[in-house]
Amino acid sequence: MMAVSYSLCPQYLRVSSGARLCISSGGYSWDTHKKKTRHLVYASTQKPVKTLCLDSEAQTLLDSVKWDDKGLAVAIAQNVDTGAILMQGFANRDAVLTTISSRKATFYSRSRSMLWTKGETSMNFINIHDIFLDCDRDSIIYLGKPDGPTCHTGSETCYYTSVFDLKEHQQVEGNKLALTTLYSLESTISQRKAELAAEENGKSSWTKRLLKHNDLLCSKIREEAEELCKTLEENEDKSRTASEMADVLYHAMVLLAVKDVKIEDVMQVLRQRFSQSGIEEKRTRIAES
Amino acid sequence: MMAVSYSLCPQYLRVSSGARLCISSGGYSWDTHKKKTRHLVYASTQKPVKTLCLDSEAQTLLDSVKWDDKGLAVAIAQNVDTGAILMQGFANRDAVLTTISSRKATFYSRSRSMLWTKGETSMNFINIHDIFLDCDRDSIIYLGKPDGPTCHTGSETCYYTSVFDLKEHQQVEGNKLALTTLYSLESTISQRKAELAAEENGKSSWTKRLLKHNDLLCSKIREEAEELCKTLEENEDKSRTASEMADVLYHAMVLLAVKDVKIEDVMQVLRQRFSQSGIEEKRTRIAES
Repeated sequence: MMAVSYSLCPQYLRVSSGARLCISSGGYSWDTHKKKTRHLVYASTQKPVKTLCLDSEAQTLLDSVKWDDKGLAVAIAQNVDTGAILMQGFANRDAVLTTISSRKATFYSRSRSMLWTKGETSMNFINIHDIFLDCDRDSIIYLGKPDGPTCHTGSETCYYTSVFDLKEHQQVEGNKLALTTLYSLESTISQRKAELAAEENGKSSWTKRLLKHNDLLCSKIREEAEELCKTLEENEDKSRTASEMADVLYHAMVLLAVKDVKIEDVMQVLRQRFSQSGIEEKRTRIAES
Repeated sequence: MMAVSYSLCPQYLRVSSGARLCISSGGYSWDTHKKKTRHLVYASTQKPVKTLCLDSEAQTLLDSVKWDDKGLAVAIAQNVDTGAILMQGFANRDAVLTTISSRKATFYSRSRSMLWTKGETSMNFINIHDIFLDCDRDSIIYLGKPDGPTCHTGSETCYYTSVFDLKEHQQVEGNKLALTTLYSLESTISQRKAELAAEENGKSSWTKRLLKHNDLLCSKIREEAEELCKTLEENEDKSRTASEMADVLYHAMVLLAVKDVKIEDVMQVLRQRFSQSGIEEKRTRIAES
């Protein structure tokens, strides 16, 4: 198997001796906006090619990493929109350099003693938005957007085995992902919807009633938005604001479930909007209207 | 320094030989609701005390962990409400057992060759809600709620050094945490509020206008909630729903900023509500009203 690394910045490129240089175009997208971009693939049958696109600050930063006795640091891939921890591997200096230049999460495989880019087989790349080092400089976050499920099992993330479920003898249908609050609520609402669809004689619930009655759902969303505003207009205390916001979120999330829209999609809209100064753009839209 | 482990289930306790047993009451809280609870502290000047509160399933699960040649696995602490990765350490079997029984994130310190519970010095414990193993069984998530900042620097998390900021020569004021979309937006809104408070002659922005004018802000929240409902009532396409939900979220988050309420507080309300079958309770409330 060949060690492969990628680069988008050929102006800085120095190909290491012994490397074969292959140029390909199209292929798959590099950036998060799914534009097809011309790119270069450097493949070497010898040692991994260093992609030297970094300026001195980033090189200095990597010099400061406390690589362990095998030259590795822990690298954690996290979904930039949901916060889900997708997988954890190890990275050496070359893996981080390759991740920076290719913007695809790249690790060092301890079993195969080589670099590997997550997705090089499955095409489920993790498209990197930023990389963070911890205070001790021995742990790395690859903050990125996955193209598809990260786990080789087809699961969204590799973390789907709960110690506490086993401890409490809970029977879990399918995998229970390590979900944080918002996504755990989304999962619950989604389950209720599935129960309704299957016409199971499960317990009735408020969520199911909302899922079945669009008029009720919409009147609740309007009501909760009204109540949220009133906490500001009538100077109610902070706990009321938090509580009403929770109500707005919950009811709006039931609407998302009815429409088959995922919270992650909403987050993506928000990210793209405000990273493009969309908040400012909106002002223009409003001024024009 | 003494190795210390904790237990809340003395009915299963077997104190290892050579351990000194200390009983203390009060001290600090064990659970997430900040109730002061009587608890036991087992302190040993010899090897760490095993807290044997686990049933056989969890023991079997821990047997299946692929501990490395030093008996360790990577342990990542994640905020159950925000999804923020708080810190990363290593855990051995005893560390995980202690975490399960004490519900405080506990690691194995490689430098001090002993267990340590995050917060034992700072009191900023990470209160565990669940523990997940990855598909390879060599990586662990401690999903929990931190009592306060996790990093010894006082930072909320240990990940505040962005490789890309350095690479792009961006001057970052203070630390820039590894934030996911929702919390990154919250941080941007919070910055705009701080600029307004400092009466800086920065760029004007839609966010600042909303922050200054409660009437405008509330009319926008009502309008966006209305538009979100219309995507359901008028059967608009999914992308419209995602877009309107993003608008609802953004404007509601500006209101949270005005009221000094954090999204994390809202998530905590949601978590406590639906983990207590609050969604079902709400139905009762509605039925009664």
